Amino acid sequence: MEYASKLLENAVYEVSQLPGIGKRTALRLVLHILKQPEQQTVSLAEALIKLRTEINFCKSCYNISDTDLCEICSNSKRDTSVVCVVEDIRDVMAIENTSQYQGLYHVLGGKISPMEGIGPHDLNISPLINKVKEGEVKELIFALSSTMEGDTTNFYIYKQLEGMQVTTSTIARGIAVGDELEYADEVTLGRSILNRVPFENSMKAN
Amino acid sequence: MEYASKLLENAVYEVSQLPGIGKRTALRLVLHILKQPEQQTVSLAEALIKLRTEINFCKSCYNISDTDLCEICSNSKRDTSVVCVVEDIRDVMAIENTSQYQGLYHVLGGKISPMEGIGPHDLNISPLINKVKEGEVKELIFALSSTMEGDTTNFYIYKQLEGMQVTTSTIARGIAVGDELEYADEVTLGRSILNRVPFENSMKAN
Ligand SMILES: [Zn+2]
Ligand SMILES: [Zn+2]
Repeated sequence: MEYASKLLENAVYEVSQLPGIGKRTALRLVLHILKQPEQQTVSLAEALIKLRTEINFCKSCYNISDTDLCEICSNSKRDTSVVCVVEDIRDVMAIENTSQYQGLYHVLGGKISPMEGIGPHDLNISPLINKVKEGEVKELIFALSSTMEGDTTNFYIYKQLEGMQVTTSTIARGIAVGDELEYADEVTLGRSILNRVPFENSMKAN
Repeated sequence: MEYASKLLENAVYEVSQLPGIGKRTALRLVLHILKQPEQQTVSLAEALIKLRTEINFCKSCYNISDTDLCEICSNSKRDTSVVCVVEDIRDVMAIENTSQYQGLYHVLGGKISPMEGIGPHDLNISPLINKVKEGEVKELIFALSSTMEGDTTNFYIYKQLEGMQVTTSTIARGIAVGDELEYADEVTLGRSILNRVPFENSMKAN
């Protein structure tokens, strides 16, 4: 594509560096920005820079936080003996939305992926191991996505925990509540049968 | 959704103000930005502000341009007697890509749309009429999308031109080159039969 202006070309280029945004979408977004009041562009730009330069991560769980300890870690009502291990803060938000979990979290910041060049040392794994070593954590719940990378990461952490006094579990996989069995993929359906729960438990959950 | 941080919430809010970007996508984009080097966020923010504050429009055709007259208007090889009327600069780029057109453009900046509160005076219509009055333009080609707003805009301009020595035309609508007739919508197919062209012309176009 040839652009009529260097300023335009540069803005389209920068926007198209964002994931899932091609040149065509970037051009549409940039032309929209041109039609908006100048102040709106300034607000957008400032919010991004402020976020990137001033962002803080919880010293304990690596959740995004405006304070040293996040609201979850500093809430004395949470159960500090259970830690749910997640990939990123979207998972924390999703689980918090269910209001079903009272323990703490540990945000790894990704999954081990040799393909993408992400190794164990690129993730917040050793602070997790240290946390367990300190002895207060009784259970780790692995809540990574069930992909090869997720399984590899779970297993890597599991091996690091050898000899420590901690229980590990993974979140239940199964048919989504309200879904028809006939449309479920067979791996999920198979797991949901193998990992069936006592009927009384399923009633409690509703 | 509850955010763990005001900075995060604010960035997600600003990004989700862009058209076609919901809160969920905005959060994904913002978390990506957090993983990138700081300089990349600064480049993105600066490109947007620079574009919005320094952008210049061609004095003649209202195309985006870094100079007073755009490259097309200042190209002495272009045919200044033909002006193609388009909605926005994406249309200029699309037509330029075909390498089939040697005339000039006039970018309206939108279409008349009472629903969205866009009237003739919000668009670059009077400079177009003045350009025609000056007498050099022999033909106006309407290339707006064939929607109610596009047709309204074409007709509004057409009425303004009453009594002036100028030919008006619209771009041909028809079955896309390579498309099967059976899958075409009937309005398009109908127009393509009514506006059939001599066979020799169709051969020239290939
Ligand atoms: Zn925390
Ligand atoms: Zn121009």
